Amino acid sequence: MYKSIIENIRKVVDLNDSEVAVFNRFVETHHFKKKEIILQESKVCQKLYFVEKGCLRMYFINKKGVEHITQFAFDGWWISDFQSLMNHTPSDYYIQAIEESNIVSIDNQQLDILLTELPQLEKYFRILMQKAVAGAQLRSKLLYAMSKEEFYFHFSTSFPDFMVRVPQYMIASYLGLTPEYLSELRKKKL
Amino acid sequence: MYKSIIENIRKVVDLNDSEVAVFNRFVETHHFKKKEIILQESKVCQKLYFVEKGCLRMYFINKKGVEHITQFAFDGWWISDFQSLMNHTPSDYYIQAIEESNIVSIDNQQLDILLTELPQLEKYFRILMQKAVAGAQLRSKLLYAMSKEEFYFHFSTSFPDFMVRVPQYMIASYLGLTPEYLSELRKKKL
Repeated sequence: MYKSIIENIRKVVDLNDSEVAVFNRFVETHHFKKKEIILQESKVCQKLYFVEKGCLRMYFINKKGVEHITQFAFDGWWISDFQSLMNHTPSDYYIQAIEESNIVSIDNQQLDILLTELPQLEKYFRILMQKAVAGAQLRSKLLYAMSKEEFYFHFSTSFPDFMVRVPQYMIASYLGLTPEYLSELRKKKL
Repeated sequence: MYKSIIENIRKVVDLNDSEVAVFNRFVETHHFKKKEIILQESKVCQKLYFVEKGCLRMYFINKKGVEHITQFAFDGWWISDFQSLMNHTPSDYYIQAIEESNIVSIDNQQLDILLTELPQLEKYFRILMQKAVAGAQLRSKLLYAMSKEEFYFHFSTSFPDFMVRVPQYMIASYLGLTPEYLSELRKKKL
């Protein structure tokens, strides 16, 4: 069993070894190759994914066939399409591994049962979701408050690892810049 | 005591009358006049706010002195600056009543104690936060996928009440349009 998910949970709530054994019964582990698709657009998203090690991206393809990346998930992050997950509607998104990735997944229905068996995990997931809301609030403010150039410099300074691990064209897609403009900004920064 | 917050909670988890009495010990009720400021920029946000009846907006003022609205909250919605609340950092936001509003608030530290007394509320807040994440994911997709015109039409069709209750210049600020352009779009729609 992967360990970092347990460490991640134990930062927030207590989980003794027999509870860890219960937890492990409810989750699945996966190894995805680089470029492997984890969630396919038009399928209902059934699972929450935790990145033990690696990197995933979430994106959709617009009417003109252009990819737009809306989220990344690195080691220790959770990712899912919550709209699809909660409403049982087909997802507009793809989730894809952009590095070789070790992933822990939990089925949404299984999660409900797990949470009745280990109710302390409600707190863990509540705080997790609250942090995600805080992150979304910050992102929406930065997008309004900064020029694209300022947003890029803020982003590259705040997340230097990210800039190294993620291909440039994906960073451009995430920041809503053309790859050419991103390349200009990089030169300016150097 | 206001009632709609209790109904709202009971849609998700059980709460008997003695538990409601416990809950009521932890929350405060407020009546805010139209235009009253509830959270002041540069103050640490200490509370979560539930709209029993009325409407709040959350906005910040950019370097050029221009207001940007990032969220609204109507009857039955919660609102807070979670970045400030969780990190105890000064908020960049204002929260303001845009109608006369009846509000229930809970202090973040009190929430921790409440959640140990009524642990079933962890589930309520977890699902609440999860819905907020789903909403943020949807909004971020729509912003990328649609033109401003399409976004306006989607928005006005999905939330007709909103269009009636909220002043036009605030809708423009929320959608990232100039008031003049919004007015053109309205004429087109009519």
